[in-house]
Amino acid sequence: MKFTRFIVDSKEHMGVVTGEGIKEITGDLFGDWSYTGDVYSLNEVKLAAPIVPNQIIGIGANYVAKKEDLPTVLPEIPVFFYKPTSSVIGPEQNIVIPHGIDEVKFESELAIVMGKEAKDVSESDVLDVVFGYTIGNDVTAPQYFHQDGHWTIGKSFDTFTPLGPFIETELNPLTVSVEAKVNGVEKQNSPTDFMIISITKMISYLSNVMTLNTGDVILTGSPVGAEFVKPGDVIECRIKEIGTLRNTFTRA
Amino acid sequence: MKFTRFIVDSKEHMGVVTGEGIKEITGDLFGDWSYTGDVYSLNEVKLAAPIVPNQIIGIGANYVAKKEDLPTVLPEIPVFFYKPTSSVIGPEQNIVIPHGIDEVKFESELAIVMGKEAKDVSESDVLDVVFGYTIGNDVTAPQYFHQDGHWTIGKSFDTFTPLGPFIETELNPLTVSVEAKVNGVEKQNSPTDFMIISITKMISYLSNVMTLNTGDVILTGSPVGAEFVKPGDVIECRIKEIGTLRNTFTRA
Repeated sequence: MKFTRFIVDSKEHMGVVTGEGIKEITGDLFGDWSYTGDVYSLNEVKLAAPIVPNQIIGIGANYVAKKEDLPTVLPEIPVFFYKPTSSVIGPEQNIVIPHGIDEVKFESELAIVMGKEAKDVSESDVLDVVFGYTIGNDVTAPQYFHQDGHWTIGKSFDTFTPLGPFIETELNPLTVSVEAKVNGVEKQNSPTDFMIISITKMISYLSNVMTLNTGDVILTGSPVGAEFVKPGDVIECRIKEIGTLRNTFTRA
Repeated sequence: MKFTRFIVDSKEHMGVVTGEGIKEITGDLFGDWSYTGDVYSLNEVKLAAPIVPNQIIGIGANYVAKKEDLPTVLPEIPVFFYKPTSSVIGPEQNIVIPHGIDEVKFESELAIVMGKEAKDVSESDVLDVVFGYTIGNDVTAPQYFHQDGHWTIGKSFDTFTPLGPFIETELNPLTVSVEAKVNGVEKQNSPTDFMIISITKMISYLSNVMTLNTGDVILTGSPVGAEFVKPGDVIECRIKEIGTLRNTFTRA
């Protein structure tokens, strides 16, 4: 099932994307919801990010270029980071390159939406605590990375976390490919089994440190091929089974 | 005015701490609220963290040992980090030292509670967007810092962010002292003008990067003197004008 948030007449709605259009729903996305009976055409609505995350957790440098490069020994402490929820935008919204710099980096990623409170989850139980999957673009201004390794500011600017277009609940995250095109030219395209820390290991590890909550979004890392982009460039992040998340970079 | 959240008969309440006890309030802490007429004695309630933060932002290594050590040139990119809201506990709750390690570090800090959405705030307007001030203990397990400088995991464990006891709205944050005692012995005691990045510069800088939101909590750094502590140690973080935040460390 594909869930969406969308805007009609300046009002936010939730819906399910079907062959007959977007069927509006009301209630708790993670609990009890029901159809309102209203149906909208995808053409008449403006899509929003499909979720307002509770928080956003990312993982750094998590893909190899080819399966043979996967390490036999995993890092003891993976590189995790947070992004602020204020950085979230939806499909077709502009990504604003901050004052004082000319370019930023895109990173197309599979994004996990947590569906339950989760603590000390074993790897075999991870997929049970996931609600669904969307696409995230982990935009970064490495010029604002601290020399001692702190990425916080470089990943925190408003508009730096496009999410969407939909949350797909029926997806095997272990068998999809994460793609990105800049101005129509392919830059990233890797299957998720090129991840160094797999989705199951990642969520199990995090849940052994902290309580994950409903609505947490976990960005699972970006394939090899991320590049700097400039104002006017158009980025399309794609996972075939979910859709395409398209945004344009603009100057502040 | 001193705001509190407290628990009576397993139910959460909000209140204002007065000489005659806690006067319960209802409504929006940051907007319209009113007194319910109920009054509780401080002795009959269990205090909770005075706020459920929208998000938690911290700043690293932000105090000098004496005023003469303040640098004349400020760092171009301060060390900021996020802590997850799942790490928050209230006064008198136990701080759990994670499995596999014997000790963690405490850090007593002045914590700012944001009262308004804030973007591009000038230094002179910063105090207008603050709701009030509480005390935070930025507990850390440096054993879980990544060698490349990422502090994320070492600061993310459940119970690692005690907050409280109250939010004081009538405080001049520039003229208070931040103290800590371990088992009754003073370990930290510095005025907030030993901060390298002042509160006004800190919030102005952050708001120029990202939109700060109502309920965001900003931990403003910890005085010189933070140490490792072990199970059984009792930490008291104190700002005289706000109160004392007391917690005990325990083994997982």
